[in-house]
Amino acid sequence: MGNSFGKMFAVTSFGESHGSGIGVVIDGCPAGLPLIKEDIQQEVDKRKPTSPVATTRAEAEEVEVLSGVLEDYTTGAPICLFISNRDVDSSPYLRDRFLPRPGHADYTAFMKYGGFNDFRGGGRFSGRITAGFVMAGAVARKLLARLGVDILAHTVEIGGIKAGTKEVAEIKRNVAANPLRCADLKAAEEMLKLLEKVKAEGDSLGGVIEGMALNVPVGLGQPVFDTLDGELAKALFAVPAVKGVEFGAGFSVAGKKGSENNDPLATEEGRVITITNNAGGILGGISNGMPITLRVAVKPTASIARSQRTVDLQKMKGAELEVKGRHDTCIVPRAVPAVEAVMAITLCDFALRARLIPEVLP
Amino acid sequence: MGNSFGKMFAVTSFGESHGSGIGVVIDGCPAGLPLIKEDIQQEVDKRKPTSPVATTRAEAEEVEVLSGVLEDYTTGAPICLFISNRDVDSSPYLRDRFLPRPGHADYTAFMKYGGFNDFRGGGRFSGRITAGFVMAGAVARKLLARLGVDILAHTVEIGGIKAGTKEVAEIKRNVAANPLRCADLKAAEEMLKLLEKVKAEGDSLGGVIEGMALNVPVGLGQPVFDTLDGELAKALFAVPAVKGVEFGAGFSVAGKKGSENNDPLATEEGRVITITNNAGGILGGISNGMPITLRVAVKPTASIARSQRTVDLQKMKGAELEVKGRHDTCIVPRAVPAVEAVMAITLCDFALRARLIPEVLP
Amino acid sequence: MGNSFGKMFAVTSFGESHGSGIGVVIDGCPAGLPLIKEDIQQEVDKRKPTSPVATTRAEAEEVEVLSGVLEDYTTGAPICLFISNRDVDSSPYLRDRFLPRPGHADYTAFMKYGGFNDFRGGGRFSGRITAGFVMAGAVARKLLARLGVDILAHTVEIGGIKAGTKEVAEIKRNVAANPLRCADLKAAEEMLKLLEKVKAEGDSLGGVIEGMALNVPVGLGQPVFDTLDGELAKALFAVPAVKGVEFGAGFSVAGKKGSENNDPLATEEGRVITITNNAGGILGGISNGMPITLRVAVKPTASIARSQRTVDLQKMKGAELEVKGRHDTCIVPRAVPAVEAVMAITLCDFALRARLIPEVLP
Amino acid sequence: MGNSFGKMFAVTSFGESHGSGIGVVIDGCPAGLPLIKEDIQQEVDKRKPTSPVATTRAEAEEVEVLSGVLEDYTTGAPICLFISNRDVDSSPYLRDRFLPRPGHADYTAFMKYGGFNDFRGGGRFSGRITAGFVMAGAVARKLLARLGVDILAHTVEIGGIKAGTKEVAEIKRNVAANPLRCADLKAAEEMLKLLEKVKAEGDSLGGVIEGMALNVPVGLGQPVFDTLDGELAKALFAVPAVKGVEFGAGFSVAGKKGSENNDPLATEEGRVITITNNAGGILGGISNGMPITLRVAVKPTASIARSQRTVDLQKMKGAELEVKGRHDTCIVPRAVPAVEAVMAITLCDFALRARLIPEVLP
Repeated sequence: MGNSFGKMFAVTSFGESHGSGIGVVIDGCPAGLPLIKEDIQQEVDKRKPTSPVATTRAEAEEVEVLSGVLEDYTTGAPICLFISNRDVDSSPYLRDRFLPRPGHADYTAFMKYGGFNDFRGGGRFSGRITAGFVMAGAVARKLLARLGVDILAHTVEIGGIKAGTKEVAEIKRNVAANPLRCADLKAAEEMLKLLEKVKAEGDSLGGVIEGMALNVPVGLGQPVFDTLDGELAKALFAVPAVKGVEFGAGFSVAGKKGSENNDPLATEEGRVITITNNAGGILGGISNGMPITLRVAVKPTASIARSQRTVDLQKMKGAELEVKGRHDTCIVPRAVPAVEAVMAITLCDFALRARLIPEVLP
Repeated sequence: MGNSFGKMFAVTSFGESHGSGIGVVIDGCPAGLPLIKEDIQQEVDKRKPTSPVATTRAEAEEVEVLSGVLEDYTTGAPICLFISNRDVDSSPYLRDRFLPRPGHADYTAFMKYGGFNDFRGGGRFSGRITAGFVMAGAVARKLLARLGVDILAHTVEIGGIKAGTKEVAEIKRNVAANPLRCADLKAAEEMLKLLEKVKAEGDSLGGVIEGMALNVPVGLGQPVFDTLDGELAKALFAVPAVKGVEFGAGFSVAGKKGSENNDPLATEEGRVITITNNAGGILGGISNGMPITLRVAVKPTASIARSQRTVDLQKMKGAELEVKGRHDTCIVPRAVPAVEAVMAITLCDFALRARLIPEVLP
Repeated sequence: MGNSFGKMFAVTSFGESHGSGIGVVIDGCPAGLPLIKEDIQQEVDKRKPTSPVATTRAEAEEVEVLSGVLEDYTTGAPICLFISNRDVDSSPYLRDRFLPRPGHADYTAFMKYGGFNDFRGGGRFSGRITAGFVMAGAVARKLLARLGVDILAHTVEIGGIKAGTKEVAEIKRNVAANPLRCADLKAAEEMLKLLEKVKAEGDSLGGVIEGMALNVPVGLGQPVFDTLDGELAKALFAVPAVKGVEFGAGFSVAGKKGSENNDPLATEEGRVITITNNAGGILGGISNGMPITLRVAVKPTASIARSQRTVDLQKMKGAELEVKGRHDTCIVPRAVPAVEAVMAITLCDFALRARLIPEVLP
Repeated sequence: MGNSFGKMFAVTSFGESHGSGIGVVIDGCPAGLPLIKEDIQQEVDKRKPTSPVATTRAEAEEVEVLSGVLEDYTTGAPICLFISNRDVDSSPYLRDRFLPRPGHADYTAFMKYGGFNDFRGGGRFSGRITAGFVMAGAVARKLLARLGVDILAHTVEIGGIKAGTKEVAEIKRNVAANPLRCADLKAAEEMLKLLEKVKAEGDSLGGVIEGMALNVPVGLGQPVFDTLDGELAKALFAVPAVKGVEFGAGFSVAGKKGSENNDPLATEEGRVITITNNAGGILGGISNGMPITLRVAVKPTASIARSQRTVDLQKMKGAELEVKGRHDTCIVPRAVPAVEAVMAITLCDFALRARLIPEVLP
């Protein structure tokens, strides 16, 4: 259970890291959206490990469109997208099957599924699962583009090194040009140096990703439970390693007065705006038309080469573990497209719930 | 839409701040749970404004059980719980109907519902809505108690003043004895002083609440989308004024190495534990049997007496607003029972999904 | 579980026959619909027992609007509607608590809820539950009226006596004027005579209700699973005593050839129609713009005065039962408004899913 | 939307008749179920056209397991099953793209999806879609077998020829041995003769399928809306060409008295049974432990060779159509496994909702 997300744009995830492949079914995509394989491939390719501190697993990640598209247009039927796994090496996992990696889902998955879970490469708990999110996100983005909505995420912190604030145009430009997906190129250089050092120590680093959605219409969100922030947060926690989500001023509100934190309202070109955006574009669980801004805490990669204390689940006694496998020293940069994808999926679902996208596109 | 939460323990919220009352329907509560009105009243009473900086609205908040209980036991039918509103004064709202309060949902609600929304006292966006959460939470807690699960929240920061770390027993003792629901009594004193000062300035303060769930069984959570952390976060964002949610080490993971952040595993009395709990009791979206720990950022009350810039939505031009009404200087203490309630509802739903609670209680 | 229906127009039912009352929460009703108590009362009053063979329980059935309406317009918030129970006599049920009535849900409810179910007056399994459906249906009808959709049900068979076919206008006129809600007044007279005879024998009768929806837009229904016929059928089986549902030619298709059953297409005033309507207005789970026609089999009232064989569930041995209480000899006429109501709810949900009704009504 | 069914055993359908293939994702299958491709292939093979009056489309229908199974056991992760399409000939559909077949979903699909729908071979509205139901049903059956539940469907009427009543053992034996899946071999012979005659006339026939579920535990079903009969009916209407569903005595209740229709209760081997089974095993939407019996009306194949009146949707004027393609003269026999499959899926979902199947199988 729990592998579907969205009410009107419903995404169902399937597949495992070392199984046949990774897939997703999208139910609710309106008919008449131009959609070719390359639209999706292009987003998936953003996940490719390009930095010197990323995994050496080399997946072609070629997208197949198994249903829901005819003559390069969506048909209104469920769209199944699939990527076959190719470069799989399950040997380290077979050896350490009963030695859960500290900080990883190995132990909880083993317990929940009685040891039947696909443990190879983390199975369902691998970051590779986000390839499915990214495929669905590619479709969601195309739909949102119809409304003018633009979604953007970037690395703002790794291992304590913080990126400076940049304008949107600069972020877009620099993120694409940068293996760490950080808009502050000077900070990115420092981050990379630190990552290389930490990699040599057999260790890993965490960080923070900022997500933004621009030109979001006023009125998205269905409180009291299906709030825009609540659903975005839920979707973001589906990205492995996320430990915190905050909107606008986030946790800094704890030290603020109302007079500082409240965003004054004003009019601009006939519409209402706020002078500041401490709300991060969301009030009462509903978008207010200002940019949605959120920040996501990503923990350091759990799989590290250094020796760690664990428990042998067969013998139920303590053991030492050195994780082999091919792991990213920091997954933050590769989580950036996943953050964008789940933001897109969530916003698309709310746009459909608000009837902003018809059943058949014009 | 969006007023129901939970798949097996489904809570539907209704009611407004200044309408007939606040209600909730619980669908999925097993039959055979002893339940009397007082069980629920007792939790609801925790919401009562007791501090000198809280609202002066004096609601009796008397719970009525409208369905689902026979001879003091749940019947397996939906349980409807209702609190009538009594001490209502809508006059300030009538006057300022078209002047949205900065930082409040007035503007987004107006836009989403075309001005038809119940604006009196914030309507559906009032903190008063959480009375419904607390009623449902009271039932959830009784069910969770069967599994030994204990849920606890407390104020850990107000206006930049942080509470010191305390043991669970001390937290329980002090929270009840303290209008700010803060376990560090010395810090609570300072907080209160600051609140009185800020109140005199016509201003307000934010803070942080910590939530804990103890004795949670291993295996709660339904990844990849219905993760335990994701659903808890979604539920917490239903509590008005929440701007961030983090689990375990939370945002501090951004500055940590994997070797620091990974919680080493060990055995204790025949079960697996972790030596530290940076994971906050959740790995891969599934509980690992350690205490669930989370922190919630609560923004300062939006309704402040100080003059603020807003927009007159009828004339579509700038205006000044001084919010009258009866508002808490800081809603953190009164949000504490709401945090506990939504945690209980979420955990109860997952316990049911994991078949840990039968359809008929023994 | 299972007390909510609808995805965009979500109806949650609560309450029991002999409890505090019967209620319903509607989540998803757009803002800006004019709605006063009388709109709902008027539909509820159709349920009143008026025939000489109906129950003598005399309920005022006064509707209360507990939320979701402000200044006689819907607000977009959940609408809670409630009817208090007044004329309750639980004594016969207390006596026969462990003697399940043959043909009634007494036994299954006892088993499913471990004997904790509210058995008084059938509890959740009473026809009285449909008062909640009718309240929600009243709101759905008002929304559907905006699209020109008209819903109509009437008795077409009781105890083997079949009504002749009538035009829509005649049906409307006669149904209202007739305690059996049968459009064929001559047949109705015979039915009444038969019912009086059967009542005297301490027995009961079943029948058939026909439901129609006129002016339904083309395109309602969400196959493959959320078909228009499938969801209508599911909703109709929520009406107690329904044992079969068929659309258009229904079971008679078993004896037909394709050339007889296929409805030829033609154009009329610029739109496509079918010459016949064996499809009952639904093809492939989607409305085709022709009238939706369906027929519902309603079993004879299970509660009869004649002695019947049952089992004493405490002693687990055979017993005889003569049902006392105040029961309709035939529930068909009083199920007619319930059929209309669940049809309206279902169609309204699909109209919302098809984005035919905006979030805020113009 | 609408391509998922089930709350705890959630089945998502995708694929088209002439696209890449037909697939299904099952979310909620417990871990630890032994499952190999052959388990599913065996059920899928029952759909094979074997009678002389069936389609000549020759599909290998080879099942692929794309996820959710490791070392021949289910893992608890979503199971994706897929059948590639091979023997596809879309030419007749390309020619008649704008000439909707009377009695078919061509017109409604065209309208709902704005002409973007995959029209080739009926696309999503082809009987071929039921291959996905059958794959999911195969898994559901294996789970239900753990509870002893046995599901069985057979042809009881074609073109007005009715099969005689048979015992369960005889039904099982004869259905497998018989291209029409009719347990009355003599009637089957007559049916076949009639079918050959009708086929020669370029026409088609409808019929009735009976479904049974044996050894169903007491207590399945979640009233008031998620009744066992309601959900079964909804699932059955997902099978193309179904126009009616009835349970137990079904529509015949209209002519019965309560004293005839009520099933007297008795005890047998320490449990409660009913002497007759007019209820079809369901009372108040909940199983009573007796066999579930239902009947499904299946209309004659809409695609017939005889000339029919239709409308050219491009020119919006009348036209004549002779359907080419390869169509079954009667789809009743090939719908039999689909009926079994959706019954299994529905019952499995309810068994899970009733916590009768754990998250990990023992």
